[in-house]
Amino acid sequence: MPTLSIQPRARIFHGHVWVYATEIKGRFGEPKPGDVVQLQDARGKPMGSAIYNPQSQISARLFSYRRQDLDLDFFTRRIERALKARTDAGVDTSLCRVVWSESDGLPGVVVDRYGDYLVLQTLTLAMAMRQDLIIQALVQIFSPKGIIQRNEGGVRKAEGLEQIKGVVYGETPEPFVVRHEGSAFHADLIEGQKTGLYLDQLDNYQHAAKLAKGRRVLDCFSNQGGFAQACALAGAAEVTAVDISESATELAKKNAEISGAKVTFIAANCFDFLKQQESSGATYDLIILDPPSFTKTKANVKDAMRGYKEIHLRALKMLQPGGIMATYSCSHHVSTGEFHSSIEDAAVDARKTLRRVAMYSQRPDHPILATIPETEYLVGYAYEVVAAW
Amino acid sequence: MPTLSIQPRARIFHGHVWVYATEIKGRFGEPKPGDVVQLQDARGKPMGSAIYNPQSQISARLFSYRRQDLDLDFFTRRIERALKARTDAGVDTSLCRVVWSESDGLPGVVVDRYGDYLVLQTLTLAMAMRQDLIIQALVQIFSPKGIIQRNEGGVRKAEGLEQIKGVVYGETPEPFVVRHEGSAFHADLIEGQKTGLYLDQLDNYQHAAKLAKGRRVLDCFSNQGGFAQACALAGAAEVTAVDISESATELAKKNAEISGAKVTFIAANCFDFLKQQESSGATYDLIILDPPSFTKTKANVKDAMRGYKEIHLRALKMLQPGGIMATYSCSHHVSTGEFHSSIEDAAVDARKTLRRVAMYSQRPDHPILATIPETEYLVGYAYEVVAAW
Repeated sequence: MPTLSIQPRARIFHGHVWVYATEIKGRFGEPKPGDVVQLQDARGKPMGSAIYNPQSQISARLFSYRRQDLDLDFFTRRIERALKARTDAGVDTSLCRVVWSESDGLPGVVVDRYGDYLVLQTLTLAMAMRQDLIIQALVQIFSPKGIIQRNEGGVRKAEGLEQIKGVVYGETPEPFVVRHEGSAFHADLIEGQKTGLYLDQLDNYQHAAKLAKGRRVLDCFSNQGGFAQACALAGAAEVTAVDISESATELAKKNAEISGAKVTFIAANCFDFLKQQESSGATYDLIILDPPSFTKTKANVKDAMRGYKEIHLRALKMLQPGGIMATYSCSHHVSTGEFHSSIEDAAVDARKTLRRVAMYSQRPDHPILATIPETEYLVGYAYEVVAAW
Repeated sequence: MPTLSIQPRARIFHGHVWVYATEIKGRFGEPKPGDVVQLQDARGKPMGSAIYNPQSQISARLFSYRRQDLDLDFFTRRIERALKARTDAGVDTSLCRVVWSESDGLPGVVVDRYGDYLVLQTLTLAMAMRQDLIIQALVQIFSPKGIIQRNEGGVRKAEGLEQIKGVVYGETPEPFVVRHEGSAFHADLIEGQKTGLYLDQLDNYQHAAKLAKGRRVLDCFSNQGGFAQACALAGAAEVTAVDISESATELAKKNAEISGAKVTFIAANCFDFLKQQESSGATYDLIILDPPSFTKTKANVKDAMRGYKEIHLRALKMLQPGGIMATYSCSHHVSTGEFHSSIEDAAVDARKTLRRVAMYSQRPDHPILATIPETEYLVGYAYEVVAAW
């Protein structure tokens, strides 16, 4: 069987599952792209089974500590294990990410479930080659009406894979509306952004809504109005939602009509809107900041930090004592500590004392593994203004 | 009015409220120990009011950004604000820390409420001098049956204050039993450790109990059996609780008799117990590790880390896939990152893949302020074993 021997001190010896090209010491048995390979340490001790793609910087990804083939039985067991993890965590498994790549022991396989439909991504060469087997396992477990592949984006390119989307099993769904805790969302599984909506934030919409009762709420980077709807339905005094995308704003308006949430939607650049509101002396009681990732790379962390600082500062200036800022970062490259520093700096500049109301993370359908830091990427804080200096 | 001018770049310019002796640039108007002083920056710009004690390394503690006296009205407003924060956070205010020092804008004032009784600590000279005013405010707000002072410990010594405890208002309570979510605790407000029980962990007992149903639970560093009782009452298959203190174990047994929780209590050194259990091949389904602070100083962080690593490793070795470790650190000097590293290292040595179940913090009756890192001291994680290598 094809085998890779791994350099000492590679991250795989510290509980990670990635092997970088530079961490490979030797190749035996002519491993081919997409093969299952055996890993061994420099002394020849077996370490488990991995998928191999020499074209990717991450040339091997461990998926089992045993000798293991990628067969139907394996996929079925791993997907069932992932589903059980969501059930155990209390996640609504009819609307969730049911498989999330390395976090579920299936590197490169991502499956989102929207009721009767599944959206599949195979983002590594080995998994893309075995997509039919994965579809077979998914059909067995979920009996879906249809499965859509959304095989796009930079990760596929890095693996040398084509960009392709469309129905790979069963029926083609028209865009439809999914409901979550009273809110409505348009799911366009074939054309929508990020498979339609942000599953990783669904719980946080409800957490923030608990703070909204009777408050004048501003929801920045609102997208489909997840926070805005939840706050309005939870009894906010008024809700304004802002997003730069005209189309997202249109969808959000329709969502709120369906859910009955009273929200004022504005299509605008959130940075400009916050600046204009702050200089006009506007105030709010709850400001929600849920920007898209400000950086996809380590190199741009400084720019991201500038972005966070600016929105934190403007938000805090518009909050009086008793007001709350709920803010989220989904940039893995910005650490929890860096993100928190941005809040601290803004507090000092805005001359506000802040008391923590809550700390938030990604929904448990995006599981965090202790020894794979890349699996933890979403952090949020709610802070209440206690005093203004 | 006595005034201190502060060196540029002191931490107070970054949102902290402490002024170290080395950060004082000048003293005007002969400030005396225990005085309220005005703070100003090097250019004479007023910064607010602070309490002063030159005997302490932390020579001044800011308590208001305005010119403010420590009068009855002030104490009443601050205590009411603190109480409202607990109510807003959903804390049971009949059993909680109602005032927590800097976090509530009252540096050195700590008040715990056990139903009809209050336990008061005044840990700074200025507050100790004004203890009668504070008692007056507390009587107004809570109409307690009695107030007990527990003015002991190193912080009082650092401020040059005597060690003193006893009733300062109303009746002397006999040791009594308090109930929380079905569990029972002995509250000995005059002689008990840390005013009787650990209020900061009360919520976490319930969080852990949610994981306990049907499981064989081991609760290490059990003290009065908070985790053990909650798990047993939530339907654990069996619960073993271990604590080094014979007296705590006796109290815990009585607690469990009252609450009806079926728990086996063992008085033993937890390190020894874990070692012995692990080498005898014992297994559990949920292991809870809630040790006392392993270090009170920055200097001993290495020892603390060794302690965490050892208990994490032994616990993980006794968990099969599906088993959960819930572990807590209450050492401020051990950062969240360092604590998490200890879990990661133990996972690698135990050869276990860990998926996060939850992250925990201190109960909101110990509020965290964004710009005072010392206010955040308790962190916890629950991790499930997904795979054994």
